Amino acid sequence: MISHPITGLVAATHTPFHADGSLNLGMVEKQAAHLQHTGIAAAFIGGTTGESHSLSLDERKALTKRWMEVTAGSSLKVVVHVGANCLGDVAALAAQAQEVGADAISALAPSYFKPRSVASLVDCCVQITAAAPELPFFLYDIPSFTGISLSMPEFLTMGAERLPTLAGIKFTNPDGMMFQQCLYHSDSAFSILWGTDECLIAGLALGATGAVGSTYNFAAPIYQRIIRAFGENDFVTARAEQKRSVELVARLASVGYMGAAKSVMKILGVDVGPARLPHTNLDAAQEKALQADLEEMGLLSAEFRV
Amino acid sequence: MISHPITGLVAATHTPFHADGSLNLGMVEKQAAHLQHTGIAAAFIGGTTGESHSLSLDERKALTKRWMEVTAGSSLKVVVHVGANCLGDVAALAAQAQEVGADAISALAPSYFKPRSVASLVDCCVQITAAAPELPFFLYDIPSFTGISLSMPEFLTMGAERLPTLAGIKFTNPDGMMFQQCLYHSDSAFSILWGTDECLIAGLALGATGAVGSTYNFAAPIYQRIIRAFGENDFVTARAEQKRSVELVARLASVGYMGAAKSVMKILGVDVGPARLPHTNLDAAQEKALQADLEEMGLLSAEFRV
Amino acid sequence: MISHPITGLVAATHTPFHADGSLNLGMVEKQAAHLQHTGIAAAFIGGTTGESHSLSLDERKALTKRWMEVTAGSSLKVVVHVGANCLGDVAALAAQAQEVGADAISALAPSYFKPRSVASLVDCCVQITAAAPELPFFLYDIPSFTGISLSMPEFLTMGAERLPTLAGIKFTNPDGMMFQQCLYHSDSAFSILWGTDECLIAGLALGATGAVGSTYNFAAPIYQRIIRAFGENDFVTARAEQKRSVELVARLASVGYMGAAKSVMKILGVDVGPARLPHTNLDAAQEKALQADLEEMGLLSAEFRV
Amino acid sequence: MISHPITGLVAATHTPFHADGSLNLGMVEKQAAHLQHTGIAAAFIGGTTGESHSLSLDERKALTKRWMEVTAGSSLKVVVHVGANCLGDVAALAAQAQEVGADAISALAPSYFKPRSVASLVDCCVQITAAAPELPFFLYDIPSFTGISLSMPEFLTMGAERLPTLAGIKFTNPDGMMFQQCLYHSDSAFSILWGTDECLIAGLALGATGAVGSTYNFAAPIYQRIIRAFGENDFVTARAEQKRSVELVARLASVGYMGAAKSVMKILGVDVGPARLPHTNLDAAQEKALQADLEEMGLLSAEFRV
Repeated sequence: MISHPITGLVAATHTPFHADGSLNLGMVEKQAAHLQHTGIAAAFIGGTTGESHSLSLDERKALTKRWMEVTAGSSLKVVVHVGANCLGDVAALAAQAQEVGADAISALAPSYFKPRSVASLVDCCVQITAAAPELPFFLYDIPSFTGISLSMPEFLTMGAERLPTLAGIKFTNPDGMMFQQCLYHSDSAFSILWGTDECLIAGLALGATGAVGSTYNFAAPIYQRIIRAFGENDFVTARAEQKRSVELVARLASVGYMGAAKSVMKILGVDVGPARLPHTNLDAAQEKALQADLEEMGLLSAEFRV
Repeated sequence: MISHPITGLVAATHTPFHADGSLNLGMVEKQAAHLQHTGIAAAFIGGTTGESHSLSLDERKALTKRWMEVTAGSSLKVVVHVGANCLGDVAALAAQAQEVGADAISALAPSYFKPRSVASLVDCCVQITAAAPELPFFLYDIPSFTGISLSMPEFLTMGAERLPTLAGIKFTNPDGMMFQQCLYHSDSAFSILWGTDECLIAGLALGATGAVGSTYNFAAPIYQRIIRAFGENDFVTARAEQKRSVELVARLASVGYMGAAKSVMKILGVDVGPARLPHTNLDAAQEKALQADLEEMGLLSAEFRV
Repeated sequence: MISHPITGLVAATHTPFHADGSLNLGMVEKQAAHLQHTGIAAAFIGGTTGESHSLSLDERKALTKRWMEVTAGSSLKVVVHVGANCLGDVAALAAQAQEVGADAISALAPSYFKPRSVASLVDCCVQITAAAPELPFFLYDIPSFTGISLSMPEFLTMGAERLPTLAGIKFTNPDGMMFQQCLYHSDSAFSILWGTDECLIAGLALGATGAVGSTYNFAAPIYQRIIRAFGENDFVTARAEQKRSVELVARLASVGYMGAAKSVMKILGVDVGPARLPHTNLDAAQEKALQADLEEMGLLSAEFRV
Repeated sequence: MISHPITGLVAATHTPFHADGSLNLGMVEKQAAHLQHTGIAAAFIGGTTGESHSLSLDERKALTKRWMEVTAGSSLKVVVHVGANCLGDVAALAAQAQEVGADAISALAPSYFKPRSVASLVDCCVQITAAAPELPFFLYDIPSFTGISLSMPEFLTMGAERLPTLAGIKFTNPDGMMFQQCLYHSDSAFSILWGTDECLIAGLALGATGAVGSTYNFAAPIYQRIIRAFGENDFVTARAEQKRSVELVARLASVGYMGAAKSVMKILGVDVGPARLPHTNLDAAQEKALQADLEEMGLLSAEFRV
């Protein structure tokens, strides 16, 4: 088993596009700077927020390459999401991640054709991890998107035997009981990253020491305060900040979360462009209304900007 | 709006049966005593744990009557679950609950035929609450059983206008964001009861002040310690106790939760009999193995017994 | 195994209510006459169309009693649906059905608590059939409502051993492969009743000889022509009539199927009243628009009326 | 609207692999010969049976190129499935299909990120069809795999306006009512290809004139007899053959359909190799048992082989 505790906030970054939807690698530098400015520990690139499934293999490779260039020498870690339906592509992405010096890889399972058992899921992961034998591996469990609901504790048990680089799970799953079972598995040897931003305080209470999410891209100060307040047993503050996070997520979801989230980035001065189909985007009027609301919610102040 | 904050632990009680499956009202007194002995604030009777849907209307009425007799003059509150598919039956149960002096009623929505909108759900609740106009009403939201996933904040908004007795929600739903939205709704006027025992600590962190669940029947000391430790900012203890709760639930679920839970009650000396079909029950060997494991887990010590 | 082939069209009848939602048994006679006038072989009473889950036990008993009185001496068979969540109630309904001379009983499985295996489903059916040992029993498989998807061929295999009165299945399930597996099971010993009105022609092609459905209440002439045309290998006519059935169902579904279907009955002169909550009903304007459309679709001509 | 009626049986072909899982284009010629020998009208390549989601973009292009070479000058039509999550890849595949002279393209919707409305689905299809403006386009509707359940009649309505090349739907959906609505849409202008092999007789009864499926690869003679018998109103024969098809599918599904189906091809002398992960494959003993059963079922006789 590989030792690789990721702690703190990990931002599941957006993939930047030009207005016409083509890849805009020129924006990565600004994204990275923004994350560092707001105290983010690591960038999780090319995941669900990164629209991985809407990217070509070449685009994913170019994205990874650019992030490694931009973060070279910085303290911002990079976790490359390599998951896809085609395991051959996944292996290629994993190998590249190792080659360019990423800190870790993560992958969700193929989900058009689904592994029907934990054993089959581990078989898939064997192919993936073999291509990056030196990088810590995080399984990415996100049943609401993949439609795959397998036992994560069983995965850890079988994975501990067959996956030498298994480091943990990106746990984007509302099942708090299973979260604890993973957290305490193998004498707490694995990093189980909390994946529900709008309940970070619940994750902290359960024992999470790291969290991955998409709102950490643009609202990290809220969560930094939650973590700090939690550490000081100040639940009044922690809950008040969490409430702001809930209101933010609800506001974005009301007009289509992904497109709205990319608009927030633009409003904050980090223009990552529109989301690709089948996601929808905000029109100008919606974006203006959003900006006004964010302003009122105090989410456009200096601490949220670079 | 009715003011009726239920706080503390509410046990979703089992309905006691004889070995042949017939109602065993003689056991209610022992159940009530056991709950009081372990510091439970209220009994939620005839709910999911109470196998309400496997009871006849007459059995439900007899059960309510017996609980009110047994708890007369005691500090143990009684919340009567009156939900069913037939709203006529629900109204009859609600009226009886008021007549016999229950503290509150609760109801899940009809779920064979499902309300397709919040408005339709509220229409159902109007029929229910009209039959018990003096009792606080808690909607019982449990999507995993009913297959109904409606917005609870919207329910509260519409319910605040049309349901004079609306007091809150029994929130058996893993959606922690929606939990918070309900908690803060109408300036926190409603009681939103946390419904996930195995993550009580998460609920407390989010701000829950009351919780309903089935493991509070037989493992309340664990949860009392969680609440106390949480109040003292002692997360080491709180998490250790929550871990025990997780292990207990996992152990019971491995052999069929409901039948196993009733076996635990029997092992503790409060024999509530077998579960009715379509639930399954433990055979003698399984029950013996369970007893040994509970012993080892320290769950049969004096504090867990009357 | 009991021999009881039900053939032809079986109407899943509505339960008649007064305008205030109370039971209107006075309308049963007219319903029965209407069915006989349109060549229906049997009435399936108190099922999904009959809003069984919205009826009290007493109402269901009264309904059965009334149907048996009204059909005494007639050729119209009566199949009593006795399914419910509470198996005690189910047994009571089964016993009554036998006592009053019904032709057969049918039951869906408890669905709030669900049987998790075929064996558990058969256990439930043992309780049901034991209460009416002289009546043929049809399991009612309707996964879209119950959320229970078990193998019906396996049910027949196990049921053939343990359920002496098992006669077949009311197959309201779109799985045509499983339909065939049931049809050919035990050398075609069971009656597998086709449950998808809008694809009756598909059922006939696959070999169905009986069908149960709700549109047979008000549009039987369409289906009689489908059956006749199919028998004469006249697919042009059969498909044209099936197309009308599809258009009718689509029209009703567009405004809430159940309420709309009850409006159709009223328009045809058999006023079965409104549907109970959580179903919705048509307002006056919607009903008027529906009547105009039915007129245009040729569904209000003499042959559709008593 | 483009006129392109595909009629008869369309085989959803397997993608051939070597034993090590790498692409084995050398086998395509034999596959094509086998299809022609058994009277198949068209090959649907790179679809669900073709494990499209487990192939890289380059592999899909190579596969298409090879199929066009092999079928050049033959009467076997080729429909190229181009669907994928990344619409950029889809457009590239569509453009290639047109360039190399395919007869038509088909695509399922992105399904990791899902279109949430018919309008969004049509937006996706606009991107796809624009890349192959001369090729007929078939939407591929397969909710059991994609988790997308949108109204196909509404898709045809909107598609008729915005997709000049829209030719029809590969309808792998058990909803026979919706099938008819599509069949009769726009005065029956679209080809709605029946997608449920094990109920082909039902599709024929409903009016299908073309069908796409995976068992047509290895059991076409069964289906040819069904079509012939249906045309002669000989339902005894048609049903008996359909029953064989059901038994075949059930046998394969009992050991994992996809791996088993590829074993059947091998047994018939067209070795398309194993299925890729996350599919599972038969071991030697399972394959031997399958061969024995197929022998007994009469599915290895001369007419099934080249």
